[in-house]
Amino acid sequence: MHGGDLDTARKLFPGAPEPFLDLSTGINPHPYPIPALAPQVFAHLPEPAQLVQLRSRAAAAYGAPSESNVVPAPGTQSLMALITTLVPPGRAMIVGPTYAEHARAASLAGHDVSIVTALDQLDDADLAVVVNPNNPDGRIHNLDDLLAVAARQRARGGLLIVDEAFMDVGSRAMSLAGHVERGNVIVLRSFGKFFGLAGLRLSFALAARETAARLNAMLGPWPVSGPALAIGETALSDTAWIESTRRALAEASQRLDGMLDEAGLEKVGGTSLFSLVRKADAQQVFDRLGRAGIVVRRFAEEPRWLRFGLPGAEADWQRLEAALRR
Amino acid sequence: MHGGDLDTARKLFPGAPEPFLDLSTGINPHPYPIPALAPQVFAHLPEPAQLVQLRSRAAAAYGAPSESNVVPAPGTQSLMALITTLVPPGRAMIVGPTYAEHARAASLAGHDVSIVTALDQLDDADLAVVVNPNNPDGRIHNLDDLLAVAARQRARGGLLIVDEAFMDVGSRAMSLAGHVERGNVIVLRSFGKFFGLAGLRLSFALAARETAARLNAMLGPWPVSGPALAIGETALSDTAWIESTRRALAEASQRLDGMLDEAGLEKVGGTSLFSLVRKADAQQVFDRLGRAGIVVRRFAEEPRWLRFGLPGAEADWQRLEAALRR
Repeated sequence: MHGGDLDTARKLFPGAPEPFLDLSTGINPHPYPIPALAPQVFAHLPEPAQLVQLRSRAAAAYGAPSESNVVPAPGTQSLMALITTLVPPGRAMIVGPTYAEHARAASLAGHDVSIVTALDQLDDADLAVVVNPNNPDGRIHNLDDLLAVAARQRARGGLLIVDEAFMDVGSRAMSLAGHVERGNVIVLRSFGKFFGLAGLRLSFALAARETAARLNAMLGPWPVSGPALAIGETALSDTAWIESTRRALAEASQRLDGMLDEAGLEKVGGTSLFSLVRKADAQQVFDRLGRAGIVVRRFAEEPRWLRFGLPGAEADWQRLEAALRR
Repeated sequence: MHGGDLDTARKLFPGAPEPFLDLSTGINPHPYPIPALAPQVFAHLPEPAQLVQLRSRAAAAYGAPSESNVVPAPGTQSLMALITTLVPPGRAMIVGPTYAEHARAASLAGHDVSIVTALDQLDDADLAVVVNPNNPDGRIHNLDDLLAVAARQRARGGLLIVDEAFMDVGSRAMSLAGHVERGNVIVLRSFGKFFGLAGLRLSFALAARETAARLNAMLGPWPVSGPALAIGETALSDTAWIESTRRALAEASQRLDGMLDEAGLEKVGGTSLFSLVRKADAQQVFDRLGRAGIVVRRFAEEPRWLRFGLPGAEADWQRLEAALRR
């Protein structure tokens, strides 16, 4: 099941109380407040100066050297479809288990995809993909280790992609955003998860100038929507909201972990936006929650795992707590 | 100058009265009325069933065989970046002069691009691109002639892309949308121009099932934004609005042509969404309009041409008329 796939949940649990509480994603349940959007935002083609402004704000927010290193795109999938073509079809190696879309994108671009379990197995990769912090287990890779992978790859013309979709809630010192100018490293950032606006479709690639220019050219002059531009440029420079949200998410995450622990679910890892837990009868927990109208993420490859996103409203927290106790 | 590039106009005409009247695009100045958008439209990931619904409505609106032939995307550029990789780098031939982005996309994908002037010069193309009706001259290619190009290309495994971005205001019988299932033809449709919502970023490729499935997979599970999904599915099935808008645009286009004719600008061609005119001193007309705060499209390759989009508000019509008479 994909995150956000409530259709599937409705089929699995036809008698469940509606509306479903969707905890299957790692999206902030308290979105950035949407400002009033002028009709022109929808009607007109975004202007080049607005795009430069968005790139500039993203560079500042994510710690990229400059706006020339930033590629705004309508989602990480759009970026991966293009990035995977930057190197000729070869060996793609992905540190897993992780977000499944990367393997799919690499495979569609003609790469021979294999999943490895550690950074030191990436040496033969033409295209190496690391999710940091990792989804679903929250595993964090050390900055120096990642730079060492990039350095080893350079000799063979390989490319390292570091998906930092959940880095907004991590320690900023761990991001590779400041190091993309050394080349052959591309960092992916997701706007929608931390800002709680996944429907907006806004993501960024951070890359060396030349690579960024090439990706920007491939995406064309109007890569993202007017609403994404308008909301993105405001939100990315709202440091007060960003700081208080980091704290609020960390607190909410502790509350979630407390509930899961009380329910006998053993924490495997996570970030402030989701927790991964293990239980021998995880499938039964999944079913019990599903019948109560609560959808969490399960994993075909590891049936003892469940991933929980954060409830938002207090009533949702109580609904989860009640369902876990049942 | 790109359509919609007001920044450039401001630099060219620093003393011009603001706001600029932007007639440099072929976008309907009377947008489809934007319905109230629920916060979830921005916050949540679009669900798969919504995407199927949008594909289904687009198939009906554009005359594609079924929703399985439809690929929703955040703009034609995103589609071209992927479509140009469906055939190995080879000879791309584009019937021109036309919209410049296609040549750029084909070239970025590694194709050797040449511009030809007629359909019968496309025989050696691995990737053939025809804009129909053509932008900027409104030239219309016959359906049978296009199908003959596709048939000849089939032998060499070539692909024919027909960009029908302005077909919404053309005769429906001319669209290739109903013929995509025969393979090696991909039709591009643009939502934003006819519906006047270019900032929404919504376009469609119509293709044979297998090709559509491949493109849909490349774009991933959330190819377009929540707002684009919500507005797109409503607008595409609003046949009353579509029909009255076709009529209103045709009338507005006649009014525009009358004004241009009175100003001594000779009509070269166009569609209901733009008119292309010729004049020996077109550059002076461009400057005169620019100083009056009116931006039209000019062409480096044909300095006697100017393309005019439609004014919207009555005051804008009068402003244009006054500036043309000056």
